[in-house]
Amino acid sequence: MFSFTVIEKDSTTKARLGRLVTAHGVVETPAFMPVGTQGSVKALSPRDLEEAGCQIVLANTYHLYLRPGVEVIRDLGGLHSFMGWERSILTDSGGYQVFSLGALRKITEEGVHFRSHLDGSSHLLTPEKVVQIQEDLGSDIAMVLDECIPHPATRAYVEASTGRTVRWAERSLQARKNKDQALFGIIQGGMYEDLRADCAGQMTPLPFDGFAVGGLGVGEDGATLSSIGAFTAGLLPEDRPRYLMGVGRPEDLVFGVRSGYDLFDCVLPTRNARTGTLFTSGGKINIKRAEFSNDPRPVDEACGCYCCRRFSRAYLRHLYQAGEILAAQLHTIHNIHFYHQLMERLRTAIREGKAEFWPNEAQIKMQIAN
Amino acid sequence: MFSFTVIEKDSTTKARLGRLVTAHGVVETPAFMPVGTQGSVKALSPRDLEEAGCQIVLANTYHLYLRPGVEVIRDLGGLHSFMGWERSILTDSGGYQVFSLGALRKITEEGVHFRSHLDGSSHLLTPEKVVQIQEDLGSDIAMVLDECIPHPATRAYVEASTGRTVRWAERSLQARKNKDQALFGIIQGGMYEDLRADCAGQMTPLPFDGFAVGGLGVGEDGATLSSIGAFTAGLLPEDRPRYLMGVGRPEDLVFGVRSGYDLFDCVLPTRNARTGTLFTSGGKINIKRAEFSNDPRPVDEACGCYCCRRFSRAYLRHLYQAGEILAAQLHTIHNIHFYHQLMERLRTAIREGKAEFWPNEAQIKMQIAN
Repeated sequence: MFSFTVIEKDSTTKARLGRLVTAHGVVETPAFMPVGTQGSVKALSPRDLEEAGCQIVLANTYHLYLRPGVEVIRDLGGLHSFMGWERSILTDSGGYQVFSLGALRKITEEGVHFRSHLDGSSHLLTPEKVVQIQEDLGSDIAMVLDECIPHPATRAYVEASTGRTVRWAERSLQARKNKDQALFGIIQGGMYEDLRADCAGQMTPLPFDGFAVGGLGVGEDGATLSSIGAFTAGLLPEDRPRYLMGVGRPEDLVFGVRSGYDLFDCVLPTRNARTGTLFTSGGKINIKRAEFSNDPRPVDEACGCYCCRRFSRAYLRHLYQAGEILAAQLHTIHNIHFYHQLMERLRTAIREGKAEFWPNEAQIKMQIAN
Repeated sequence: MFSFTVIEKDSTTKARLGRLVTAHGVVETPAFMPVGTQGSVKALSPRDLEEAGCQIVLANTYHLYLRPGVEVIRDLGGLHSFMGWERSILTDSGGYQVFSLGALRKITEEGVHFRSHLDGSSHLLTPEKVVQIQEDLGSDIAMVLDECIPHPATRAYVEASTGRTVRWAERSLQARKNKDQALFGIIQGGMYEDLRADCAGQMTPLPFDGFAVGGLGVGEDGATLSSIGAFTAGLLPEDRPRYLMGVGRPEDLVFGVRSGYDLFDCVLPTRNARTGTLFTSGGKINIKRAEFSNDPRPVDEACGCYCCRRFSRAYLRHLYQAGEILAAQLHTIHNIHFYHQLMERLRTAIREGKAEFWPNEAQIKMQIAN
């Protein structure tokens, strides 16, 4: 079960308000998906996520495939049951992690060979196997296997890689058995507009339920991210969800929504939380700083999360300095709440026809504060 | 504000049901106090504690004195406000940690000199200073400075140390300024019944609001713990709360309640949780074991905590193996819930006049399961 409806389009930007429905509920878009790499959004319980208004999380196929193993999760009733998460789940293909974490990886037309970062064991992921794994996991949205092209890369490399990604996408559709699970194609093409256009031209006629844009946020400068991101969004069909993969500073989300993207994921809010970097309506703060040691204020006076309702910066700094687990919990609750509030405000702005999306960080700060 | 009322006495044991009232609420006794060493019960939020039915926590003066410092907490409105914990708090004197963690410690009649385990700085804790610190922290119940005598110890050492503990107790009462904060005396005397009796004989006429028994659970065998524990409880006045310090296996709590104790604390349930040892109605389990890797059951089918309502042993094992913070959170929620449920059952047994307290672990298991 999967549907996507565009409910409202903004008049001055490409932004759109949408409603994505899976067997596990409704996802109002644009939406941010917290990352639950190993079947857990680090330091948060499902309850914490629900409280933040989270409607969909991302889980990493690579990690779950290696540990605890797909069979374990399948036999326990699938990933929703395993994680105790009753709302929607998107699983990635594992491709990105093979390239970033796996050792001795080798790409062939068949698939990608690699050794586990956990125990050195050898594995082969093919497009067909990746579809099968995600069907066994039972996620609501599955992604095709692709190669996330590193930056910089030569035109010849990008061309060859992107061609293979398209062939893998076709094989993924052939391998699909469970039509109730949505399957998204991924547009690659590096930082070359014409290769992005070629890729989209071959992918978008295929019967995917949605399209993702990969290979951005990999070290290119902000101007390139924006221009390639906006250009590629414009190549995607209006009637299916658009997912900008792995890009997720607050300002990137604003840019992405303006460009017409509907889904986002990033480890930034959760990872930053664990190192004490907290997002606020006045900009980022690092709770480690001595200036907070006596500060009775909440992290963000404009925030209504449990962390901000109950605890002072001074207490949070103390917890962090003392190495208390509760620091990671409370900081993550706050950052995830901040991200969901940001998306809620963006959706409200589209719904109410307010064109004043936040084009820069200063305005993000101001607007969120109001 | 402090009062203690014995509501019901068991007919066949020394157990009693009590009601302890502080400015921060009612504590139904017998009660177990989770340990919030650094101003946080490790891996739990105040909300988690409330949900477990926790009415009082213990915080460690030694740790808070060294970090973040008493002034910080006092200036932020005291420990309740600092921790975001609105119910009752008992602070210990710091004495135990000086002996177990502090370096280069030296005891004189004046007090105890030591170096911080954090930065090596030199400190002197006196009975007077310890009272002042706890008044600044604003806990509901403060403890006098004592020496927790190691085991084994010679009779001469125990005699000298216990004499000093009594003199320190008298100085503590003199130093007291805030009569709204309860102050408990501590009975020492090692494993010598006559020295325990001497100590109690000198301490119990003093106007303390309650009495604690210290120096047990320090490595002595179970029979000695039981006999000295029960003997010393019998030396304490009926009308004031009795606190068995730092002793806290489930079977110890049952023994302690039978012997007439009202308050308990121990790091066992929280520390065990973080290493994967979970208490269940069928006995302890270690979630690390391979046998749990496919186990769809909750930790304890007889338990109603969030962890048991929502997650399988297989998932918890995976979280533990994967090093996820959520493992510590969920395990601690369960163990603390288990302890509070055990106390609730003990209170119910006293209230309903059921004499069948659990004399051994096998019966604990059975009874909790029913």
